[in-house]
Amino acid sequence: MAFTFQINKDVVWNHDKGLLQKAEENKPALNKKKVVPKQIVELINDPSKLGDVGIIPKTTDLSELDTTQFKRDESVILDFGNHFVGHFNIDIDSVGSPMDAPLTLKVKFAEMASELSSSSEDYNGWLSRSWIQEELLHIDELPVRLEFPRRYAARFVELTVVDTSPKWSVVFSNPVVIAESAVDFDSVILRDTGDKMLNRINSVATKTLMDCMQDVFEDGPKRDRRLWLGDLRLQALANYATFDNTQLVKRGLYLFGGMTAKDGRIPANVFVKPNIVPDDTFLFDYSVFFAATLADYVEHTDDLETLKNLYDVAKKQIDFTFQYVDEDGRLTLPEDYPAFIDWSNDFDKATAAQATLIFGLKKFIILTKLMDDNNSELYVAELDKLINFTKEVLFDRENNQFIVERTGEVNIASQVWMVLAGVMDSSTNQLIMEQMIHTQFPVTGIATPYMYHHIAEALFVADMADEAKKLIKQYWGTMIELGADTFWEAFEPENPNYSPYGSPIVSSYCHAWSCTPVYLTKKYL
Amino acid sequence: MAFTFQINKDVVWNHDKGLLQKAEENKPALNKKKVVPKQIVELINDPSKLGDVGIIPKTTDLSELDTTQFKRDESVILDFGNHFVGHFNIDIDSVGSPMDAPLTLKVKFAEMASELSSSSEDYNGWLSRSWIQEELLHIDELPVRLEFPRRYAARFVELTVVDTSPKWSVVFSNPVVIAESAVDFDSVILRDTGDKMLNRINSVATKTLMDCMQDVFEDGPKRDRRLWLGDLRLQALANYATFDNTQLVKRGLYLFGGMTAKDGRIPANVFVKPNIVPDDTFLFDYSVFFAATLADYVEHTDDLETLKNLYDVAKKQIDFTFQYVDEDGRLTLPEDYPAFIDWSNDFDKATAAQATLIFGLKKFIILTKLMDDNNSELYVAELDKLINFTKEVLFDRENNQFIVERTGEVNIASQVWMVLAGVMDSSTNQLIMEQMIHTQFPVTGIATPYMYHHIAEALFVADMADEAKKLIKQYWGTMIELGADTFWEAFEPENPNYSPYGSPIVSSYCHAWSCTPVYLTKKYL
Repeated sequence: MAFTFQINKDVVWNHDKGLLQKAEENKPALNKKKVVPKQIVELINDPSKLGDVGIIPKTTDLSELDTTQFKRDESVILDFGNHFVGHFNIDIDSVGSPMDAPLTLKVKFAEMASELSSSSEDYNGWLSRSWIQEELLHIDELPVRLEFPRRYAARFVELTVVDTSPKWSVVFSNPVVIAESAVDFDSVILRDTGDKMLNRINSVATKTLMDCMQDVFEDGPKRDRRLWLGDLRLQALANYATFDNTQLVKRGLYLFGGMTAKDGRIPANVFVKPNIVPDDTFLFDYSVFFAATLADYVEHTDDLETLKNLYDVAKKQIDFTFQYVDEDGRLTLPEDYPAFIDWSNDFDKATAAQATLIFGLKKFIILTKLMDDNNSELYVAELDKLINFTKEVLFDRENNQFIVERTGEVNIASQVWMVLAGVMDSSTNQLIMEQMIHTQFPVTGIATPYMYHHIAEALFVADMADEAKKLIKQYWGTMIELGADTFWEAFEPENPNYSPYGSPIVSSYCHAWSCTPVYLTKKYL
Repeated sequence: MAFTFQINKDVVWNHDKGLLQKAEENKPALNKKKVVPKQIVELINDPSKLGDVGIIPKTTDLSELDTTQFKRDESVILDFGNHFVGHFNIDIDSVGSPMDAPLTLKVKFAEMASELSSSSEDYNGWLSRSWIQEELLHIDELPVRLEFPRRYAARFVELTVVDTSPKWSVVFSNPVVIAESAVDFDSVILRDTGDKMLNRINSVATKTLMDCMQDVFEDGPKRDRRLWLGDLRLQALANYATFDNTQLVKRGLYLFGGMTAKDGRIPANVFVKPNIVPDDTFLFDYSVFFAATLADYVEHTDDLETLKNLYDVAKKQIDFTFQYVDEDGRLTLPEDYPAFIDWSNDFDKATAAQATLIFGLKKFIILTKLMDDNNSELYVAELDKLINFTKEVLFDRENNQFIVERTGEVNIASQVWMVLAGVMDSSTNQLIMEQMIHTQFPVTGIATPYMYHHIAEALFVADMADEAKKLIKQYWGTMIELGADTFWEAFEPENPNYSPYGSPIVSSYCHAWSCTPVYLTKKYL
């Protein structure tokens, strides 16, 4: 996720058996649905689509597959018509003389057509090659019902016969995907926003969320397939607006709460397979957001038992931050505990980080009151100190913009997070957003739906719904126009083919932090 | 095997359940032996070895493997010290941060070191790429005991980490091969020939035979892994001289006898996995050799029950050939029923084919007598006709060489097979062989141990043991000097790096038709 890998090998972890037991109890049973291909397609050059790769149908009569014989280097692309997460199965048989050599088969799974035009051999990016959804199989005996043990995220399945022998060919039939999710798309009735594109965006957002809702809220089902706190916060909000599966949110909260470092911090993400393991990565804002996510959950569910069980964990995240806040109310983070804010490291995150602490602390203070915590006032005092410093030192009243203290840098993240943190009053927020639009729009240099979400939400918070809608339609709408069935991990509108990894084959085209329009439009429109 | 693939899709087969049941009853239980690597090696340039690729040890202390961490693009070559056929297993674990991506592993299995220096991507030969012993695996969860379901033939196992992630490394431990064969090498005590190199050749030949003795006598355990009649005949002879597992010969004979085409012919080879299936390939000499192989078997075992059961099949092979023999005793074969003789198609095989029929018919006549067949005399008459024609038309008395009638061509195969067929008397045979050595040695243009075997045996038959020994030591000895642990499918001494497929990665370096020195030296020395 973040471009800088953290390696903290020596972290000692507490495993709270009671909390982890609660996580286990809330493990979902997955819904399984059989999906068959809609058509057989071939790739075409299409500058209107991602990576200039479009598709045209070869046939929608899938019975033609059973009668097509494949030999060395011949291939077929099955199009399942929409994104899926699940297991692929197919019948394979030989035709002709007896099978005098194994069959070697290459199978590629692609969320977007452009992945199919990229070669795995050419990929040399910093992100693990192991995420490339490609299998090379030797099959010694035919016929076989080939059942793939691994789970894939894809819309397209390309079968390439690496070789048979000159004496026989291969025939494929009955391709099937057993799609999996903790939720059912048909259980959601999406509200009509009165705007066709927004309706489409909401539908794709809901599908994105669904495909990320598995054993946990995954960040992306193709990659990295795990529970990140920053993603969980947004997924939970979108989930409340759609599937409303509160059990999976609860499970996520307990997983983070159940594994904390000796210093009390939660990990930025946890692994659940084969065993539950915390990642040795810590992000300041993600820790703070544990309180926010818990507060959102309690507000939505009134589940005070979970609050009681996890309150101490939330408190520890907040308490831990105070060592980085000086007497004046200035947050200064150490290098090994950075705020994520966004993938980009091309802007200074200090002021945005200050805002995330204010944002999280406010949410936590709500919890202190629900818990009748005697120390509630201490947190309010800390909040006042942070806000006072922010207003006095970080806000440029002349320009109605927040600056970074050290350099005077004005950036989008600072404005957006200060508006979300509610540091200023409503009319000032609007002035801030207007000035931001005036000086910084169209947005450039931001490639994550995660940051775009916060920009859009800040616009809504500042009572600028039209601007928010416009941004959502531009950003998420463009993904749809480029061919998205689910929203992406990364998208930079000014550079649509940009991949943070240099190749689409390791990009995640179904990534949960992009699913929020369905939450935003429900809450603010 | 033969360079020309036969495709005879419309053949209708008789399956004789009784005979196939006998084949099934004689299915061997495989011996399994645990083998561990002897050392870890790296490849070096070594012009004295096959393909100029030699090895040097990196360490013989295998415990160093457990403590070596591997990351992207790093690899290790395990050297098991000798050829094996079997299943490979290894423990794999991750070291470092939690496993935040799958492990992608490439595993190459190589009989000869030169295979490891060839890239499968570059192979574009006519033989199926599917024979390349290379796997690409994605492993989602570590640690794992990786048990390879497929069987490999190899001495070297190269593990290459395609990728982990920047956060963790891979450690390998406990590499093990469970080697399989129908026989046990230690059950054979090889006679001392008094010649060091011949002793080594016999040992390697015995290992070659052992590794091809599996569920059936395979031609090669790497490739094509099936029962060919031509190979079976030689394997059976070498087997009588070593392991003396008559059950496996019997099984092979029943497999051929149990599946014949409507016209009575046996296939040139049969498949046994997943089901018993005859190949749609017919070779004249291989059909004729069914009688020879049966006669050898009966001579060695006195198993008259098997003779009784399979006599009709042998008879049909012989009877079928007579339609191609004219009144003068001249054999003329149609294009779709060729004699194999050798891979090379650069010489005329007509005279050699005539000799194989005489050879097989003589063996069959022995069987007619054991069976008290009333028609025995008819076969003797046919034999006389063939021999008379051969002596009168095909033998050039001036040069003591057999010629091809149509062109007058004199080639090695004609002389060798006529000597083996015993057409002339002993002293003439010697003159023939002497003249052949004088005009055609050193042998060129012959790349198969199969043909070299027949040259060597013809020299023995012509009482030229010294010349035979010399040829064996030159041909098979050179393979050993080039690094052979088992003898090869193809070797052309004048062009040692020659592969019939253009790349060593699909060559078979343990191929049964090369195992005969251990038979020849036992029988003739």
